[in-house]
Amino acid sequence: MSKLNKRKYKQLSIKTEAPQRQEPVRITVIDYNETSFEQKEVNSVEECFAFKDKPTITWINVDGIHKTEILEKLANCFELHPLILEDISDTDQRPKVEDLDTYVYIVLKMMSYGYEESEIQLEQISIIFGNNFVISFQQTIGDVFDRIRERLKNGKGRIRKMGADYLAYALVDAIVDNYFDILDQFGERIEFLEEETISGPDTAILKEIYHLKREMIFLRQSIWPLRDLLRGLERSESHLIKDVTRIYFRDIQDHVIHIIDSMDIFREMLTGLVEIYLSSLSNRLNEVMKVLTVIATIFMPLTFITGIFGMNFIHIPGLAEHWGFPAALAIMLAVGIYMLFYFRKRSWL
Amino acid sequence: MSKLNKRKYKQLSIKTEAPQRQEPVRITVIDYNETSFEQKEVNSVEECFAFKDKPTITWINVDGIHKTEILEKLANCFELHPLILEDISDTDQRPKVEDLDTYVYIVLKMMSYGYEESEIQLEQISIIFGNNFVISFQQTIGDVFDRIRERLKNGKGRIRKMGADYLAYALVDAIVDNYFDILDQFGERIEFLEEETISGPDTAILKEIYHLKREMIFLRQSIWPLRDLLRGLERSESHLIKDVTRIYFRDIQDHVIHIIDSMDIFREMLTGLVEIYLSSLSNRLNEVMKVLTVIATIFMPLTFITGIFGMNFIHIPGLAEHWGFPAALAIMLAVGIYMLFYFRKRSWL
Amino acid sequence: MSKLNKRKYKQLSIKTEAPQRQEPVRITVIDYNETSFEQKEVNSVEECFAFKDKPTITWINVDGIHKTEILEKLANCFELHPLILEDISDTDQRPKVEDLDTYVYIVLKMMSYGYEESEIQLEQISIIFGNNFVISFQQTIGDVFDRIRERLKNGKGRIRKMGADYLAYALVDAIVDNYFDILDQFGERIEFLEEETISGPDTAILKEIYHLKREMIFLRQSIWPLRDLLRGLERSESHLIKDVTRIYFRDIQDHVIHIIDSMDIFREMLTGLVEIYLSSLSNRLNEVMKVLTVIATIFMPLTFITGIFGMNFIHIPGLAEHWGFPAALAIMLAVGIYMLFYFRKRSWL
Amino acid sequence: MSKLNKRKYKQLSIKTEAPQRQEPVRITVIDYNETSFEQKEVNSVEECFAFKDKPTITWINVDGIHKTEILEKLANCFELHPLILEDISDTDQRPKVEDLDTYVYIVLKMMSYGYEESEIQLEQISIIFGNNFVISFQQTIGDVFDRIRERLKNGKGRIRKMGADYLAYALVDAIVDNYFDILDQFGERIEFLEEETISGPDTAILKEIYHLKREMIFLRQSIWPLRDLLRGLERSESHLIKDVTRIYFRDIQDHVIHIIDSMDIFREMLTGLVEIYLSSLSNRLNEVMKVLTVIATIFMPLTFITGIFGMNFIHIPGLAEHWGFPAALAIMLAVGIYMLFYFRKRSWL
Amino acid sequence: MSKLNKRKYKQLSIKTEAPQRQEPVRITVIDYNETSFEQKEVNSVEECFAFKDKPTITWINVDGIHKTEILEKLANCFELHPLILEDISDTDQRPKVEDLDTYVYIVLKMMSYGYEESEIQLEQISIIFGNNFVISFQQTIGDVFDRIRERLKNGKGRIRKMGADYLAYALVDAIVDNYFDILDQFGERIEFLEEETISGPDTAILKEIYHLKREMIFLRQSIWPLRDLLRGLERSESHLIKDVTRIYFRDIQDHVIHIIDSMDIFREMLTGLVEIYLSSLSNRLNEVMKVLTVIATIFMPLTFITGIFGMNFIHIPGLAEHWGFPAALAIMLAVGIYMLFYFRKRSWL
Repeated sequence: MSKLNKRKYKQLSIKTEAPQRQEPVRITVIDYNETSFEQKEVNSVEECFAFKDKPTITWINVDGIHKTEILEKLANCFELHPLILEDISDTDQRPKVEDLDTYVYIVLKMMSYGYEESEIQLEQISIIFGNNFVISFQQTIGDVFDRIRERLKNGKGRIRKMGADYLAYALVDAIVDNYFDILDQFGERIEFLEEETISGPDTAILKEIYHLKREMIFLRQSIWPLRDLLRGLERSESHLIKDVTRIYFRDIQDHVIHIIDSMDIFREMLTGLVEIYLSSLSNRLNEVMKVLTVIATIFMPLTFITGIFGMNFIHIPGLAEHWGFPAALAIMLAVGIYMLFYFRKRSWL
Repeated sequence: MSKLNKRKYKQLSIKTEAPQRQEPVRITVIDYNETSFEQKEVNSVEECFAFKDKPTITWINVDGIHKTEILEKLANCFELHPLILEDISDTDQRPKVEDLDTYVYIVLKMMSYGYEESEIQLEQISIIFGNNFVISFQQTIGDVFDRIRERLKNGKGRIRKMGADYLAYALVDAIVDNYFDILDQFGERIEFLEEETISGPDTAILKEIYHLKREMIFLRQSIWPLRDLLRGLERSESHLIKDVTRIYFRDIQDHVIHIIDSMDIFREMLTGLVEIYLSSLSNRLNEVMKVLTVIATIFMPLTFITGIFGMNFIHIPGLAEHWGFPAALAIMLAVGIYMLFYFRKRSWL
Repeated sequence: MSKLNKRKYKQLSIKTEAPQRQEPVRITVIDYNETSFEQKEVNSVEECFAFKDKPTITWINVDGIHKTEILEKLANCFELHPLILEDISDTDQRPKVEDLDTYVYIVLKMMSYGYEESEIQLEQISIIFGNNFVISFQQTIGDVFDRIRERLKNGKGRIRKMGADYLAYALVDAIVDNYFDILDQFGERIEFLEEETISGPDTAILKEIYHLKREMIFLRQSIWPLRDLLRGLERSESHLIKDVTRIYFRDIQDHVIHIIDSMDIFREMLTGLVEIYLSSLSNRLNEVMKVLTVIATIFMPLTFITGIFGMNFIHIPGLAEHWGFPAALAIMLAVGIYMLFYFRKRSWL
Repeated sequence: MSKLNKRKYKQLSIKTEAPQRQEPVRITVIDYNETSFEQKEVNSVEECFAFKDKPTITWINVDGIHKTEILEKLANCFELHPLILEDISDTDQRPKVEDLDTYVYIVLKMMSYGYEESEIQLEQISIIFGNNFVISFQQTIGDVFDRIRERLKNGKGRIRKMGADYLAYALVDAIVDNYFDILDQFGERIEFLEEETISGPDTAILKEIYHLKREMIFLRQSIWPLRDLLRGLERSESHLIKDVTRIYFRDIQDHVIHIIDSMDIFREMLTGLVEIYLSSLSNRLNEVMKVLTVIATIFMPLTFITGIFGMNFIHIPGLAEHWGFPAALAIMLAVGIYMLFYFRKRSWL
Repeated sequence: MSKLNKRKYKQLSIKTEAPQRQEPVRITVIDYNETSFEQKEVNSVEECFAFKDKPTITWINVDGIHKTEILEKLANCFELHPLILEDISDTDQRPKVEDLDTYVYIVLKMMSYGYEESEIQLEQISIIFGNNFVISFQQTIGDVFDRIRERLKNGKGRIRKMGADYLAYALVDAIVDNYFDILDQFGERIEFLEEETISGPDTAILKEIYHLKREMIFLRQSIWPLRDLLRGLERSESHLIKDVTRIYFRDIQDHVIHIIDSMDIFREMLTGLVEIYLSSLSNRLNEVMKVLTVIATIFMPLTFITGIFGMNFIHIPGLAEHWGFPAALAIMLAVGIYMLFYFRKRSWL
């Protein structure tokens, strides 16, 4: 938890802020228009600057946001506002869109299940697009955009014919599509929990439900703002978003609403599961108590009868007779059978 | 659940997307105006194109959306946007309306109870209407629109006199009317559950309540968006919807609000049932515990008394007397009767 | 429940729709202006038509909506839209107002407790008012408007001086006033339940609470839409509602908000009652268990002591002594008293 | 409860409406401007009329609203709408503001704890202010406005320098200030309940919580509408409210929002208390059951052992030996000690 | 609680209002522009007035609001409205912003954990900024603004280059940043509670949960209004807030929304913890009851068997035989073992 909130005092100069991690930062540049396509991995950020004034569309993808000097050079070149720079390197941003005059800044969260652990991994992705450039920042080296690179390379479909805004749309779409995988996993885990809960309550189930609820909260926190974000993009008055692209942003909006709907379903299902779990506990207690009561109700009177004939009075009728012991046993049997019938009538057995 | 969310990465070309199922696609064309009526089942989609430029109103009904080439030919002929085409073949759409310039696209869900299983069947229905044409897409061959075909054939009522927008209204109305049957079924099942719950709690009841709640969530998810959808149609600025038709869309809106109201009622009733169920469990536990307590409270003191006279002390007064045993029995009887009175006073018996 | 939802497929011609019940339809006409007043019961609906073009205000009250031909004749004469006609005869309408050009259509629900049964009776009332006429439809012959007839006859107050819109207001006001009686009944029943719940939990109470909640849901469903309906009327741009009448519609609005507020109070009170009920159950279980525990805790050690001296060892000290038995009894008494003190200290007794 | 809803059919003439109670109606008139101040108690309402046309500001305070003829005379003199008159004498009004052309009508609720009873007393207060007059109506003779009279008399502060709208503000402010006392009482009672609940659950506590919740509902019902009311006054376009006064109405708005916030806090605290209460009940049940189980688990095996040696078999080893009885006791002691260790290990003791 | 609501009747003159505490009031003045910087602690408030007409930006920080005469002198000098003055000294203000013509008034809450106690400390901070001055009021001497003083002194970053509105932003930002520390603490305490609850329910945990919920409510109450406050500042039409500063206020808005999101997460986690806690209680009860039932079910039949052979009938078969006692023991052993198997099959052991 504390990881989520651990946020140092913001400082207005980023220089000293960013953690100095040692992994290298990978910068990839793709430059294309309808007819040409060029892709290269650059070693220094300055190599990107040449692309800035070309009329072709340039996509700079930065994997790693911990090298402040790289971010600052890019910011200087593309004239980014210092606060934007700060937001890119602060990985605790809420998904949002900032519509500045010469570029649009989008920040959102990508979700994935880690390979070795079952915890959901959150990664912050920042996308900046202007007239003829798109810059994307990922926290770590990832493959979520590979499919788009493929499409750009092949030159099939409409992606090469359209502008930077369409590329930005494609990036956001790839991230949102990712959520559906998470949803699928949720769906399967809830289905599994359902079967488990009905077959018998177990504390482990409740912990798993609780765990799922917690993950769901995080997921919702990441997705809810997307709705407004995308509505903002669709209705933006920015000249950077062409009318022909707006319908595509509306399309992702529909996907996001679909995800939110599914999460509401999951949520109500989890609430229902808790109810079933608790009532199963009550049911089980009832069962236990019935067993106890049946046993006690049968054997207490019987033991009482043995007690009567176990008293040391001399003059107890029947003690000395041959029929005494069988008669006593018969009485006890009758009492026992009567009790069993009684419980069967109340359908406790 | 996973069925619902299993949604592959969207691709911008549909060609490889749609599942290649082998059932045939049935295409029916009805062409009519106030005086003429023509209905035929076509074998190839191209036969429809001739109707496009006729001034009469043409209704093309496509049963089956898995043949991509048919969809694409229709799209080309009627100039549909690629995203619309994608939405038609993606059966996970949320109900919505898209108001494009030359046509209006409506997607909604039809619900029905399957014959052999008690699960609700969801089917996606897409309706596109333009100036003088309506195209409807169903996932499977169905009979929900038969009644409208009948009305068109008979030529009674106002349906033949009005335009394509009215036909679209009639199709939506037929689907919404269908929901009332589902609601009726819900109502009957809840009534049945009510009687069951009150007569005695059973785990099966809770599972059935949970099952109903789940179905209700799906139903709500399908119906809620309809409200906005229909308001959108009623207030649309599209020239394709004539003023005289708007009041009809408002009428369906009223039906949808009625359905939503009923579902809210059902929901609160189910919540109430869970409460009754849980308190019945508690009540039953109370009953069981009372039985146990009554039995224990009566027989423990009695057994203690037998124990006293069962001790092997030589000098216990009364052991040797004739009145000893009857006196002991009398004491026990008195204790037992006192206990019974005590419990009756506390109204446990 | 099913009564509420049983709604056949709507047909655009009403002729075959309405149930052909055999009770007669009573039509009453009141025609008045500031100086004149005429009231008569007509046998055929055609007698009403003469009043249509008179400058005086005409109020036609129709008790019974099952004779389709009567509704249709009225509709023809007053040029009502076919959908309005449909709404009048479909008794499952949600309260709403339709502002057509030459008349305003209001549909709402009247509530009353049946005399012989404790169920709430819902009756749909439709009111249509135009420039100089008001038509009201009731499902059965009722007396809710008698007071207004009285006022019209007496000619006191402002009712005769004002227009058809004011008469419509008076009708709506009479219906809303009726709700207060229902509220009073609710209040009394909840007060009664409160006393019952606190004096001791009983399954019958829970069922009654559940019953009340259900009725409350129906009531709310009828009243909530009234709020918007009346706001709609107050702010309507219709020329049929004069400015001087608007303040009266705002006044009923206040009453409706007052009713909604009271229902919210009732609702929270019922929720609180369920909580008290459930915790009373828990409390009672606690009480039962305490009795059991006290009894068991006192008699188990005692019985154990008797068991010790009941063992058949020959060399048990004290068995043969005179003081043996009294000593054993004394030990047991001491143990018993100690236990009682212990429980009193824990305040279980 | 029924008191709250008991509302007779509204009649448009008030003459016969108001209950004819016998307490006298006290009318006080204060007439002032920046330099002059005059206060007198009048015997007949007609004495007030002279003040109407004076340029000074006149405040008429009427304690008692049951004398209809007084209200009507005032209404005639100050040209009040009949519906306003009705609202003043109907003590079931929801707080609201009516902005008529020549005066503004405010109705709100004053709350106070009765001296002899712990129930909250609700009193309806109506305030009407025009250009140079304020009329206030209280149900009974009260002292809530004494402080304002004092300030007017002393002539200190800005109250004498400002207009009738400021005086109206001062009256509303006095009433809202009163709510803080009620809130304080709530706070203290909740704090007390908190301590009680934690120290041990008791049915009386639950009833008190329920009682507090009910009072809270009433309080909320009275205060919520105040928010809109005051916003309405602040933003009113009425020429009767001067710009310099608006900031004061916004100030009371802040107080009302503060009260609503506090009530939300109280509400959540009460909900939390119910949770603690219920879990305390469960805890206590657990405690009781543990005692029972410990006792049973210790003494049942022991009693069984005594039973073994109490059987009348002749050849039971050890019965005749001197070490027999001590050995049996030793076994029992060992079993008992083992059990105690077992329970301590499970930390039940 | 009562501390929170204890608010005396507001009086329109503040003179007698403020509590006359004896701690000194510390007033610090910082005067700066891009090139100059001057800081001094003043002894009398009049020393500040000289700065008012200088073109440089003046920041007056007042630690302590209990000396009414100091507040009044400042108010006179900077022409503050009397209600503003009142709000500054009333420490029960809800966070809000008042946009007056020549200055903007912001009031918000600072939170901190007290050193010696674990209770959250609330401190009210008022900030007033005009064209070239900022006045801030703290309740006690604090160090929250030290970092800003540092930045001003160093003259690095943009703070010295920008106006009074930017300084006000920096102050608000410092306060909001403080909330993140509180959030961190919450996160850690909830994580700790989670582990505790899962390892075993304890009444102390529930009290701690309840305690945390209460603190959360207070926190929320302080932060929620901040959202609107900051939106108000960002979109304010005041000429005092320059366009270049608005983006900074939007930035704090994002932080506040982030805090609100985190609190929603915490809240749902606490609710989930209560659920786990309650179901753990039920589980534990189940465990206890199972132990009891197992013990009773094993020993009751065994004791009954000993009772049979303990009866004093003369003719009980086997009593006199050598195999009698071992046979009885064998029977008992068999019964006991059967029971153990039975319980293992039901997986109670």
